[in-house]
Amino acid sequence: MTPDAADSAAPPSAAPRPLAVVRAMIDALDRDLMQILARRMALVAEVAAYKRQHGIKIRDAQREQEVLRDRHERALELGLPAGEIESIFRVLLRSSRDHQAALRAEVPASETPYTISIIGGHGKIGRLLARLFGDLGHRLLIVDTDTTLEAAEAAAASDVTVISVPIDRTEEVIRAVGPHVRPDALLMDVTSIKSAPMEAMLASTTGSVVGTHPMFGPNVHTLQGQRVVVCRGRGDRWADWVTHSFTARGLVITETTAQQHDRAMSVVQVLTHFQTQVQGLTLARLGVPLAETLPFTSPAYLLELYVTARHFAQDPGLYGPIEMRNPRSSDVTAAFGTAVQELAQVIAGGDQAAFTRLFEEVRAFFGDFTAEALVQSSFLIDRIVERS
Amino acid sequence: MTPDAADSAAPPSAAPRPLAVVRAMIDALDRDLMQILARRMALVAEVAAYKRQHGIKIRDAQREQEVLRDRHERALELGLPAGEIESIFRVLLRSSRDHQAALRAEVPASETPYTISIIGGHGKIGRLLARLFGDLGHRLLIVDTDTTLEAAEAAAASDVTVISVPIDRTEEVIRAVGPHVRPDALLMDVTSIKSAPMEAMLASTTGSVVGTHPMFGPNVHTLQGQRVVVCRGRGDRWADWVTHSFTARGLVITETTAQQHDRAMSVVQVLTHFQTQVQGLTLARLGVPLAETLPFTSPAYLLELYVTARHFAQDPGLYGPIEMRNPRSSDVTAAFGTAVQELAQVIAGGDQAAFTRLFEEVRAFFGDFTAEALVQSSFLIDRIVERS
Repeated sequence: MTPDAADSAAPPSAAPRPLAVVRAMIDALDRDLMQILARRMALVAEVAAYKRQHGIKIRDAQREQEVLRDRHERALELGLPAGEIESIFRVLLRSSRDHQAALRAEVPASETPYTISIIGGHGKIGRLLARLFGDLGHRLLIVDTDTTLEAAEAAAASDVTVISVPIDRTEEVIRAVGPHVRPDALLMDVTSIKSAPMEAMLASTTGSVVGTHPMFGPNVHTLQGQRVVVCRGRGDRWADWVTHSFTARGLVITETTAQQHDRAMSVVQVLTHFQTQVQGLTLARLGVPLAETLPFTSPAYLLELYVTARHFAQDPGLYGPIEMRNPRSSDVTAAFGTAVQELAQVIAGGDQAAFTRLFEEVRAFFGDFTAEALVQSSFLIDRIVERS
Repeated sequence: MTPDAADSAAPPSAAPRPLAVVRAMIDALDRDLMQILARRMALVAEVAAYKRQHGIKIRDAQREQEVLRDRHERALELGLPAGEIESIFRVLLRSSRDHQAALRAEVPASETPYTISIIGGHGKIGRLLARLFGDLGHRLLIVDTDTTLEAAEAAAASDVTVISVPIDRTEEVIRAVGPHVRPDALLMDVTSIKSAPMEAMLASTTGSVVGTHPMFGPNVHTLQGQRVVVCRGRGDRWADWVTHSFTARGLVITETTAQQHDRAMSVVQVLTHFQTQVQGLTLARLGVPLAETLPFTSPAYLLELYVTARHFAQDPGLYGPIEMRNPRSSDVTAAFGTAVQELAQVIAGGDQAAFTRLFEEVRAFFGDFTAEALVQSSFLIDRIVERS
């Protein structure tokens, strides 16, 4: 299509051309658009090669801001809806980062290939780790309940041993495998709790120790921007290697201690999961079938329902130990129960003044975050609406 | 840019060109891309004109499916990431519908202009209704506490009188305004509860009566695809006009009775809001500052936090009455409290078998919805990650 094809778009005041004709023209434009996207991807591959050669990080926040600002201005000049254009370019920026990561843009050309054992390598998180380290060029030894290779043997032969087994088996596996880790090697885990596994690792090996907690499930579409918590146990060289490896795949690192991690998780995981479970159980027992409420969904309710139902699509064997093994769980569930009673009483008494006071107490707790939440959740609700 | 410009993209194996050069080429491609989008919008305007002339609805689900399927196939042919391409075309499809709606594609050229009073027209929902009806070509009479025009006077002069005042004032305003509505005119409301306002409307006027409940807040970016509940009170001609008017702006209608509406809302609104409030109150009282947990956010936790904080950004005067005036509220809060106790006990006892049974009870309740929830929430979580 040549640039002056724009002239062929008749103004809406003229007698409109038949729908089939206009739609065929839209189809042709979309094909042009996808050709441009394909050329864009080829250029992104060049960017990846340049970054790898010069040791430049994939994400360049300043360039991304410039791109978004520039495209926003161009959108306004062209009379295009700026919000939608921003959505499109955000998708393209993310997709570009994914493409660069797949092309190993952040993997130094001189990366030393290590031998890495993944104990529990046939589990979902195990497979994800295998892909992550494999893409970085390392040799993998996969151990699971159905492999002939045994954990002790693999650990002894490895530079890095990763424990990726169910929470309630983690410590026992660590105690069995740890003594076989070489003093110059690394023992690491990926458990959702950190204090107990870290202690077990430090006690069972004289090698380096790093605890990690990937804050995402195995079903994510992209690692770019996902978060992983890293706790240094023993040996900074290996800890630096771990953060470097995760960063090279686009992950975001939060470094902390095992104790701080577990305290934050009593809120981030225990409270969040507990309330989702209570919500699900209440829904199941109220006697109103889901199908009866779906025609009345507001986007906000649908968002809540997705979050709740998503939880129950997953493995109770994963969630039970997270709540049962956190030392602050009973404080969290007790505070939750007290809040239920207080609020239920206010509602039963029809006391709007008390209701408003409670509301404002929570609003004060959230502070500035409320404004961000409103923007972000409105964006997400728009996405829900556009997919319905 | 000519089609063979694609050849200028060097393969990544060659020495890559400097970053600034490749980025300038990307910028140029993006300008071409936005030119195409501008031409696309012009064609969409033609589609709108055609649809208006021929009385065709804006949304054509079959065409949208065809477009998505075709673009998906083309994406695979071109080696483009299919998920991202789908995201981009979903944004374009929604944006096309918005554009068509703004061009009044679904407003019959022969639409009769009515005089419409909006009682509470300076409120957020009132202003939204004024824009909605104004865009359809109607004359508006705005009444609020700060207007000299009074409700009775406006109602007497109107074909349609819309009550859009706070819930706890709705019935009193209906009783004052209803007697002034002409027998051939319509009295309608937009209250979040339906039984009591519908009874009040039917008792206070001999004119037509329609109850509505828009299931979205005043901050939505688009009306396209948002839901509104419609309850017929008296007079099908006006009820048809209401659904027609809402549909013309892209809203989705759920028709039901006031009783069914209020039963569904005990789950959709009362339970959802109650659990959000309990969650917020617990967070506020656990003594872990929000800033301490934010570095540990998983996307799922951030999604929960956004939903919770969003709630508290809003007006407690709106939410209090919804929970206090629903006849099933005490059943809902009691069931919730029982679920809290049962689950807290299971966790404190470390009883994984009981935990799994409760989990499976809820999973059975959600049934097939769980799979959809997993897909939809994964999509939303991706959107959160890409914006962080």
